[in-house]
Amino acid sequence: MAGAGRDSQRHRPLVGDRNEQAGQRREVDFSVAAVLPASGCGERMGSTTPKQFCPLLQRPLISLTLEAFESVHWIKEVVVVVSQQNFELMNSVIDRYSHSRATVVVGGLTRHQSIFNGLKALVENRSHQSRLEKPEVVIIHDAVRPFVEEDILYRVASAANEHGAAGAIRPLISTVVATNPEGYLDHSLERSKYRASEMPQAFTFDVIYRAYEQCTDYDLEHGTECLHLALQYCGISAKLIDGPPDLWKVTYKRDLYAAESIIKESLSKSVCIIAGMQEGQIQLGILLQEDLQLVMKVDLLKWSLSKESSCVQAITSKQHYNFIYINVNSFKMHQEIVQLMEAVENVKLSALYPVVVTVVHLNNMEASSFSVWMDDFTHIKQLAKEAIGKNILIYSLLINSTQITAMEESLSWPESHREQMKGGRKILGARTKFTNL
Amino acid sequence: MAGAGRDSQRHRPLVGDRNEQAGQRREVDFSVAAVLPASGCGERMGSTTPKQFCPLLQRPLISLTLEAFESVHWIKEVVVVVSQQNFELMNSVIDRYSHSRATVVVGGLTRHQSIFNGLKALVENRSHQSRLEKPEVVIIHDAVRPFVEEDILYRVASAANEHGAAGAIRPLISTVVATNPEGYLDHSLERSKYRASEMPQAFTFDVIYRAYEQCTDYDLEHGTECLHLALQYCGISAKLIDGPPDLWKVTYKRDLYAAESIIKESLSKSVCIIAGMQEGQIQLGILLQEDLQLVMKVDLLKWSLSKESSCVQAITSKQHYNFIYINVNSFKMHQEIVQLMEAVENVKLSALYPVVVTVVHLNNMEASSFSVWMDDFTHIKQLAKEAIGKNILIYSLLINSTQITAMEESLSWPESHREQMKGGRKILGARTKFTNL
Repeated sequence: MAGAGRDSQRHRPLVGDRNEQAGQRREVDFSVAAVLPASGCGERMGSTTPKQFCPLLQRPLISLTLEAFESVHWIKEVVVVVSQQNFELMNSVIDRYSHSRATVVVGGLTRHQSIFNGLKALVENRSHQSRLEKPEVVIIHDAVRPFVEEDILYRVASAANEHGAAGAIRPLISTVVATNPEGYLDHSLERSKYRASEMPQAFTFDVIYRAYEQCTDYDLEHGTECLHLALQYCGISAKLIDGPPDLWKVTYKRDLYAAESIIKESLSKSVCIIAGMQEGQIQLGILLQEDLQLVMKVDLLKWSLSKESSCVQAITSKQHYNFIYINVNSFKMHQEIVQLMEAVENVKLSALYPVVVTVVHLNNMEASSFSVWMDDFTHIKQLAKEAIGKNILIYSLLINSTQITAMEESLSWPESHREQMKGGRKILGARTKFTNL
Repeated sequence: MAGAGRDSQRHRPLVGDRNEQAGQRREVDFSVAAVLPASGCGERMGSTTPKQFCPLLQRPLISLTLEAFESVHWIKEVVVVVSQQNFELMNSVIDRYSHSRATVVVGGLTRHQSIFNGLKALVENRSHQSRLEKPEVVIIHDAVRPFVEEDILYRVASAANEHGAAGAIRPLISTVVATNPEGYLDHSLERSKYRASEMPQAFTFDVIYRAYEQCTDYDLEHGTECLHLALQYCGISAKLIDGPPDLWKVTYKRDLYAAESIIKESLSKSVCIIAGMQEGQIQLGILLQEDLQLVMKVDLLKWSLSKESSCVQAITSKQHYNFIYINVNSFKMHQEIVQLMEAVENVKLSALYPVVVTVVHLNNMEASSFSVWMDDFTHIKQLAKEAIGKNILIYSLLINSTQITAMEESLSWPESHREQMKGGRKILGARTKFTNL
């Protein structure tokens, strides 16, 4: 895909200490919680699964949004509001992806009723030994806007703390027109004077709670805009904050495609190369690193799975979802791949996103016998089969150092993961270099 | 990707006689031309390439939009308006993808100036032996909305013919707010009373031309909405037509991702299986067909490349971009693949989209010697290498009928084409059946 640019650079890295990697650790001096209304039925998606539960790389969309909130240390609680029928499902998502700061609440029939239920949970549940506490500021966000970053959350929350209410806005993409009852153009709005109201929005808790207490049933049933309620019932004119383009709402199926591509792109921006101690392995590792670091972040590490080793630290830090394991000695290969898989599983890395392990196998086809090669191949194939169930994708690349030959084992290559193999792709691109070995 | 539904079903098939396959061949009794303003710089994409020239499966976006218009038989001319600096580029796109009804015109500095230039070309160029003629109705569309279908073009053009002006609208996705000069909320619009004005729009030629002749320089420089000009300068209140969701505008990089996924999905919805005359081949073909037709359109044909054969007709009709070639006899394989590639090239099929040829090779690994297998493998690898330059992707699947073994040759598997291999994917899924052979 050509045209990498500003737009894509804005997307937060999904891996590592994303909000702190620029050296910023923001602090707020007021307490903050968030409410995520997620009881919609996803009608516009044309799907039976509500869009907040649609899988992106097999993981429900809402889990990605929750991860975005939990990566912001100053947001203490996230109340997720779902329909009664999705209550168990939502709790299982929270369990499975270890969302430690999320609480599930059953919503109402409309968006406003659901948000109000979420707010109530923050004040009313204290008697039931709930850990929830009334925050000074509450952020309201859509479950289906997973690419929200700390920066906009911080700006909106701070503005709300100062002004009582704040919301993210974006320029209008299309001209907005008013229609007359017969379906003809009445007038068009001058685009520059209007903005699209997006999420997140934030309020001092008392402002938004009072607005909901005072608003009419008609508002609760037909309205959608919290900023409007704060203005109408509390006289608070929200501060509007220009947000980044990645606040967009997953509305149609094409938005799921786009979201999945963005995640894949983010995941394929880093790789960890693990090489053994032999001269050939390290040389190959250095060549690969030189080539790959033109397009992604690369760590080159020496094989070791002792607890303090840099290998294990790299896996534990969750900075990489792509690993390249370099092998020239087939004896230990099988065992070492099993160990690597165990390390990945132990820290639940593959619970979040698919982990890709590319085994680069350096060989001299003429010197080794076919049966040895076939044995290795069969072993890796068996491993790859087992690994798929653990969300680990093992690919094996055989490099014949006498011929320029690259073969790939790609049994059961799952459709949704192929984009993520960019790391492995580039190895193929670099294969002409290997023949110099 | 889960959640296939209404939204995706709306996307027109890119292959075959898409506008006539429902048995509808619409006729209009007035002459129609189209103007596509395409001189924007793609600022919001954050790319140096204007978005209308960004590649989707290697083909510039605007070529897909042109194809959509050229597939509608009653639209006689399409005037593409580009900036001076992209004039040559646009002409080369027209040449390369054989857009027979397109004429390129240089635009102005703003969208309105460009559209006006396009309209002028339809009346002023007659002296230069141009084939362009003033139409009764002119459709205006964005170059960056490639998924436009005949149905909405027909409805908009007919309404314009009747009322003088018409435009597609969509419900608003976000609430629209008015801001005050200090950046605070002034008021929110009631969403139900407003619509997003999208494209296509259509006008009787005289209405839109007069509007442009009479409008002010300020309008030409700052306005964007043609419907507004028709109302203000000709007193014509446009008929507004509810359009499908796939009219959306490729604005951000994520929209390119989405568009590419939609095209891939469309291309992978059909496959042509070509089997030789031997019993094993036909049996395998039938099994494959049974499995694949659960998820896509499948034609099963017998191998023949004589001119009147159904094989050649299937290729010529451009209904398939996926082919599965079944082989049990390695002698003729190489030659037949070369012939298939030539047939694909002759009708310029691979000029439009990547063509995927999966060679299914049935073998008994134990009975055949390694060297014969290795020879076949090397041959196909060489062919696959050459084919890539022709936008033909050859994959080879070796099925060992004694072991459940599937191997895939995927040398130089280009990133952008993998999704399209759904056909090939399913074969792997079906491999347990093959062992019954």
